[in-house]
Amino acid sequence: MAPTVYEIEEGAKLLPRFDLHEILPCITQDVETGEVLMLGHMNREAMELTLKTRKATYYSRSRKKLWVKGEQSGLTQNVVQFMIDDDQDCFLIKVKVVGGASCHVGYRSCFYREVKEGATEDLDFTIHEKVFDPVKVYGPSAATH
Amino acid sequence: MAPTVYEIEEGAKLLPRFDLHEILPCITQDVETGEVLMLGHMNREAMELTLKTRKATYYSRSRKKLWVKGEQSGLTQNVVQFMIDDDQDCFLIKVKVVGGASCHVGYRSCFYREVKEGATEDLDFTIHEKVFDPVKVYGPSAATH
Repeated sequence: MAPTVYEIEEGAKLLPRFDLHEILPCITQDVETGEVLMLGHMNREAMELTLKTRKATYYSRSRKKLWVKGEQSGLTQNVVQFMIDDDQDCFLIKVKVVGGASCHVGYRSCFYREVKEGATEDLDFTIHEKVFDPVKVYGPSAATH
Repeated sequence: MAPTVYEIEEGAKLLPRFDLHEILPCITQDVETGEVLMLGHMNREAMELTLKTRKATYYSRSRKKLWVKGEQSGLTQNVVQFMIDDDQDCFLIKVKVVGGASCHVGYRSCFYREVKEGATEDLDFTIHEKVFDPVKVYGPSAATH
């Protein structure tokens, strides 16, 4: 039997809606600065591993497999708080980032550009310095130019 | 021609990947407190309206229509900063919330519960007070019990 709206929204039981979607989005936020770092995805196994190990573990939709954040780069995310939203179809994890970067491009956050106000096709960089060089961390295949 | 990885990740042009997904997720963050408020979705029209009006406008997947946040409740979100992520398939908007609440359940954020550490089926409320009563704002149909 599907849970009621009251159980989902007002209850104190974790009822993630994997019955509606096999994969749910997960917002990752730096627990110290409040900066939003990335949006990942989790299937049930990724959620359970993240809760058990307290290391952020996502499900890669493109590679179709589990992915422990930082397993290749060493930039792991230690989960301090694991939250769920009102209708239990989105997670929010607050993490401490080992190594100071969460973005495969090398920036501390995946959100390093904003749309210029009044010029809706142009972006301004809001973060200018990369924490690491992706080619050094991931190898030559990470080169984009 | 599809944009290159370099153009998408390192470029200064807005190239949201509506070519891959008709609807992209949008994280909404309180610009003053840094609190993550909700995860919404935008199609191209919702993105364009949000950029033009500076009022957060989402696309409702369940109702299959555009939705100006607060059009019914009065709790609008004024967009201060509109960001996009590395691979341009997720937005992050930083907003000022008129009325102090973003969640239809009545809380200031949709993320008002955390998973208890070591008890992975139980949730603790991290926000205890509702800003408004959903039944008063949305009418009797908002009652869940």
